[in-house]
Amino acid sequence: MKPLSLHPDRLFSAEADQRAIARRLYQTVENQPIVSPHGHTDPAWFARDEAFSDPASLLVTPDHYLFRMLFSQGVSLESLGLPRLDGGPSELNPRKIWQVFADHYHLFLGTPSRIWLDHTFHSVFGIDRVLGSASAMEIYDTIDNQLARPEFAPRALFERFNIEFLATTEAALDPLAEHDLIQASGWSGRVATTYRPDAVVDPENEDFSEGVLMLGELTGEDTSTWAGYLAAHRLRRQYFKARGAVATDHGHPSARTENFSVTKCQQLLEGALQGKLSREQSDQFRGQVLTEMAQMSLDDGLVMQIHAGVVRNHHQSIMTQFGRDRGADLPAPVNFVTGLRPMLDRLGHEAGLTVILFTLDESSYSRDLGPLAGHYPCLRLGPPWWFFDSVEGMLRHKRSVLETAGFYNTCGFNDDTRAFLSIPARHDVARRIDCRHLAELIAEHRLSEDDGVELARLLAVDLARDAYGLASSST
Amino acid sequence: MKPLSLHPDRLFSAEADQRAIARRLYQTVENQPIVSPHGHTDPAWFARDEAFSDPASLLVTPDHYLFRMLFSQGVSLESLGLPRLDGGPSELNPRKIWQVFADHYHLFLGTPSRIWLDHTFHSVFGIDRVLGSASAMEIYDTIDNQLARPEFAPRALFERFNIEFLATTEAALDPLAEHDLIQASGWSGRVATTYRPDAVVDPENEDFSEGVLMLGELTGEDTSTWAGYLAAHRLRRQYFKARGAVATDHGHPSARTENFSVTKCQQLLEGALQGKLSREQSDQFRGQVLTEMAQMSLDDGLVMQIHAGVVRNHHQSIMTQFGRDRGADLPAPVNFVTGLRPMLDRLGHEAGLTVILFTLDESSYSRDLGPLAGHYPCLRLGPPWWFFDSVEGMLRHKRSVLETAGFYNTCGFNDDTRAFLSIPARHDVARRIDCRHLAELIAEHRLSEDDGVELARLLAVDLARDAYGLASSST
Amino acid sequence: MKPLSLHPDRLFSAEADQRAIARRLYQTVENQPIVSPHGHTDPAWFARDEAFSDPASLLVTPDHYLFRMLFSQGVSLESLGLPRLDGGPSELNPRKIWQVFADHYHLFLGTPSRIWLDHTFHSVFGIDRVLGSASAMEIYDTIDNQLARPEFAPRALFERFNIEFLATTEAALDPLAEHDLIQASGWSGRVATTYRPDAVVDPENEDFSEGVLMLGELTGEDTSTWAGYLAAHRLRRQYFKARGAVATDHGHPSARTENFSVTKCQQLLEGALQGKLSREQSDQFRGQVLTEMAQMSLDDGLVMQIHAGVVRNHHQSIMTQFGRDRGADLPAPVNFVTGLRPMLDRLGHEAGLTVILFTLDESSYSRDLGPLAGHYPCLRLGPPWWFFDSVEGMLRHKRSVLETAGFYNTCGFNDDTRAFLSIPARHDVARRIDCRHLAELIAEHRLSEDDGVELARLLAVDLARDAYGLASSST
Repeated sequence: MKPLSLHPDRLFSAEADQRAIARRLYQTVENQPIVSPHGHTDPAWFARDEAFSDPASLLVTPDHYLFRMLFSQGVSLESLGLPRLDGGPSELNPRKIWQVFADHYHLFLGTPSRIWLDHTFHSVFGIDRVLGSASAMEIYDTIDNQLARPEFAPRALFERFNIEFLATTEAALDPLAEHDLIQASGWSGRVATTYRPDAVVDPENEDFSEGVLMLGELTGEDTSTWAGYLAAHRLRRQYFKARGAVATDHGHPSARTENFSVTKCQQLLEGALQGKLSREQSDQFRGQVLTEMAQMSLDDGLVMQIHAGVVRNHHQSIMTQFGRDRGADLPAPVNFVTGLRPMLDRLGHEAGLTVILFTLDESSYSRDLGPLAGHYPCLRLGPPWWFFDSVEGMLRHKRSVLETAGFYNTCGFNDDTRAFLSIPARHDVARRIDCRHLAELIAEHRLSEDDGVELARLLAVDLARDAYGLASSST
Repeated sequence: MKPLSLHPDRLFSAEADQRAIARRLYQTVENQPIVSPHGHTDPAWFARDEAFSDPASLLVTPDHYLFRMLFSQGVSLESLGLPRLDGGPSELNPRKIWQVFADHYHLFLGTPSRIWLDHTFHSVFGIDRVLGSASAMEIYDTIDNQLARPEFAPRALFERFNIEFLATTEAALDPLAEHDLIQASGWSGRVATTYRPDAVVDPENEDFSEGVLMLGELTGEDTSTWAGYLAAHRLRRQYFKARGAVATDHGHPSARTENFSVTKCQQLLEGALQGKLSREQSDQFRGQVLTEMAQMSLDDGLVMQIHAGVVRNHHQSIMTQFGRDRGADLPAPVNFVTGLRPMLDRLGHEAGLTVILFTLDESSYSRDLGPLAGHYPCLRLGPPWWFFDSVEGMLRHKRSVLETAGFYNTCGFNDDTRAFLSIPARHDVARRIDCRHLAELIAEHRLSEDDGVELARLLAVDLARDAYGLASSST
Repeated sequence: MKPLSLHPDRLFSAEADQRAIARRLYQTVENQPIVSPHGHTDPAWFARDEAFSDPASLLVTPDHYLFRMLFSQGVSLESLGLPRLDGGPSELNPRKIWQVFADHYHLFLGTPSRIWLDHTFHSVFGIDRVLGSASAMEIYDTIDNQLARPEFAPRALFERFNIEFLATTEAALDPLAEHDLIQASGWSGRVATTYRPDAVVDPENEDFSEGVLMLGELTGEDTSTWAGYLAAHRLRRQYFKARGAVATDHGHPSARTENFSVTKCQQLLEGALQGKLSREQSDQFRGQVLTEMAQMSLDDGLVMQIHAGVVRNHHQSIMTQFGRDRGADLPAPVNFVTGLRPMLDRLGHEAGLTVILFTLDESSYSRDLGPLAGHYPCLRLGPPWWFFDSVEGMLRHKRSVLETAGFYNTCGFNDDTRAFLSIPARHDVARRIDCRHLAELIAEHRLSEDDGVELARLLAVDLARDAYGLASSST
């Protein structure tokens, strides 16, 4: 049996001076509340507060980090319980799914998934041995038994995790019924939605025309006109804001923005609704809407998040068999300097606007992001995204952007996860890496320890509160 | 006199904890046999087993790492013995070549060449002082005298180096006579060829049409038809496989693949044979053949190696005076996500196919390679290639890809060298850096030492055996 | 009060072995003279030797590193004293400017500006507390009082800083009157100009046609013909060389070079003078001139510096309100391998030519710069530029290029600054990082300490002297 424990110095530098400093810094932020302004948990959990059903459907089947790695080593998605679009057979027995996962747990050595899972197993469920073929069923039972208990229901865990603010993400047409339920419930937990209009912004989405029509019906605007289309977005943003939203989120294939005339915009919208846009014109349309969204953010105060540069559903046979979002999204090169220029020409100087940038192209860290955020008042840098929400990924990000952008043009950590139980683990990793990095600066006399203590606190909670306009829970 | 020795802790972190762990890990892999599944040594050495002629023609003149650096600092290629195409004068005296090399040995400080050479000098030839102007002739004599002895003949060194498997690389039209000689000799050393068809795949190669014609003659296929062209490749692959080949190798200017109709393929082939393709069409042809080679690899089990993104023979005057491969090859940006998509759409899900990817564009490590290998069953990541087969290069590669792809989607080390005597040095560097990296993870409590020991063994030999389908020598 | 001091081990690794080695190396170079072959100080300072007026106009208002960061956090450029083009109000009181700067000094935590400023405050002005809102006026007075004293006049500081050579940069049409004054003054300080012809090389510059006309008038050449245009450049280069210039400098949006026929060049020049070139043609023109400048450098011995890949004046409203060079310049992707090829085909083999390359696209370090400099005799690599003249930036540069290019294809440090008082700080940072990096190699047994001592000296002064053809001050 391999024992499982969490070493108190994990993720700190092994060098003694730095480790000692990192420990001291970490003690000051370890127990700070969790501010989670961007993520993808299911609001139904908090609306209904029902027990999670079983370990596999909670921890394995929905986690694309896990099933992409397993798939890469020859494990079928069916055996992990992912439903086929054609209704073909897919594993339903959560114990069998769990065993497959456990049999391949060694694949995650050295990956962030392993860190998050081990942390979750140990600190949420008290498990003290490493998952593997032999331990699989015992660990399954340990988790399963606990999930049935009231202190493992979603709201109870939310409180145990000391979450001060949790943002979910919903599409523009979502009625937000779950968020209404949460608000009506009188529960004190702060769970807010986020406006994610991609499906009604992307003419290449197969449901675009229908979506824009529904957008008009929902808002009473004529979304076949450019003015009506924009007005409808404004109304939906208000609707989201009334359900707690503090931000919007935009997942675009590039960082392109545009600043066209109204006539051109009307032409693009008409073409988009008729499905007649070329690839280039669709890109123009998305780019124009991004600029409009920035304008609306300036007007209504919602923070704008841009997640740019993803090739979605790269693997055709996975798309055909299992549909969207099945682990086959891949990064694309991004040029923010060129892409954002039209939007920045119009709005870049506005200190009242906050636009947060995310990339999967690390070559843009020092070439685009540091220099842009170090000049434009409206820009802040998001934390490392997706594949780079990892020990090495975070260190590369810090080392590449902070010398140019400084700490104050960043916005703290996002966990960006649908894996609710991993949230404490992810914030813990972020805080440890923050402290490790600050300890390095301090040990090399690039920063005083007093300044380090202040920055650790900023990075753990205050920058996120500030960037997303959140009042502290203690105020 | 500057003494030359090899410190037992070389290349390990200077930090005491990590160094101690690295030492322990290294002891477990230090004496493992060498598995070398990709390289460019001359099979004639092992076929004929004749003594190497002299230090300069063995160690200096054929090594493009050395003559490119010397050339960059004003040393002429003629003075290093490289033959001119026009038959003009070039140094013939190996002692003079050696002296020029020794006079400039300081240029290699901090480079991997220096590490490989010092290791070779010390551990193969027992030299205990640093090469330089003053020591040049003494060291020349020391090496020269030993080369004449039977224990320094190619097969003896092969055995002394504890090489379990050594792949050479030959062109598609090569008769493989040397490999036949090796097989017929009864020698136990395992030297295998690799199928490298670039010259009959690249319409921009000046010998393409003639080569395709010869390909037809060798195989009895009509290579002027697309079906015949493919069938001829299949037959040559079988021919290579019968001479031990376990893999193919493809050096392409980009990672482009295609998936055209047979009609289009036939048109491209005809244009190629008539020398009428545009640059874009030549690229299409190469891309299509890459997909076909992947299909053939699925069918015949040969592992496919893609070395993408090189601008060959960049320096026109060197090409004119000295011909190909004279140190003027340079990296090109590569986008594997876009480039490989057509091939992956067709074959990406095949766990029975192994495609190993190499790049000279480090920005593709985390943007393309980690995420691709972390999803597609057919993909594995090759070790850092060429300029990046170095201490810092290896560390960047590990830190950039392993958190996303994991260890099991990699394939161990390739020495990729024509410098036979440097093979032990190169594998030693790789093993030291593996252990150093694992020690860092262990010291930071990101990995248990038990897992580290297993991974060190995997990285040293087992991943290479597994990826290239090699049985262990001890089984 | 936060005390300000400079730790003797600052910027060295915290690991004890490496730190001890770094200390030993640093002691050997700490007091070497400063060789500054590329920068932007004002020659009028040294020509007239008048006292600097006040702390704000000396240290804050002209420093784009400072005002871009302050602007990014909502501080107006007017409040920092930057003049508006429309003559609108801008702060004139240096004390008020200083207070705004001090109030935001925390923004620079972790940035190189903070290191340079603290070093300047402490070592030039003897300040022993950290700048901040409370200490602002006291520190202002401390500096202001000293600036009035003769030992703080430009020449006195130049001597105190132990500057052996200082290059300024002037436009092609500059009469260089200040440099004539310096030469005529009999002062022993060596201040030389540098030929920067961008304004008469870039057809997209609004003053191009007028500038080329003036270039003709200044030289007596007919600059409406290609031959005359080139001849005029040659004459101006001679004029600059007579005022001490050892180099030229070229700030281009890309690394593109061309090698067109004279007929094509004449057509491009005519189009450029008539303002009729397309964007692509303007780029061709700039690329052709870059090749011509390399040819002239071969002929007249001036070292050629190429600073490639900047999007100048990215922020339209800043350009409109404040003009050029107001902190809104941003990096662009650069491909040197493709871009420089036409020039290198013509001149790359010339060991008598020195072309020094700079980039803001770090992905080109290992992909382009290391391999290019490791082959072509004419190429050397400049130090990390602009945003990357920082601790992490320097380390990334070293780790990415040195294993391929070696130390001898680099050219030491450039401070590249208009902030005269920061020159000792910048060279100190460079020397410390050099020693830190060498100490890492030594501690890991990749380099002997003897070799490290030699390399530290090379990096501190000798490579710069050699690359720029400067005789040592002691010879």
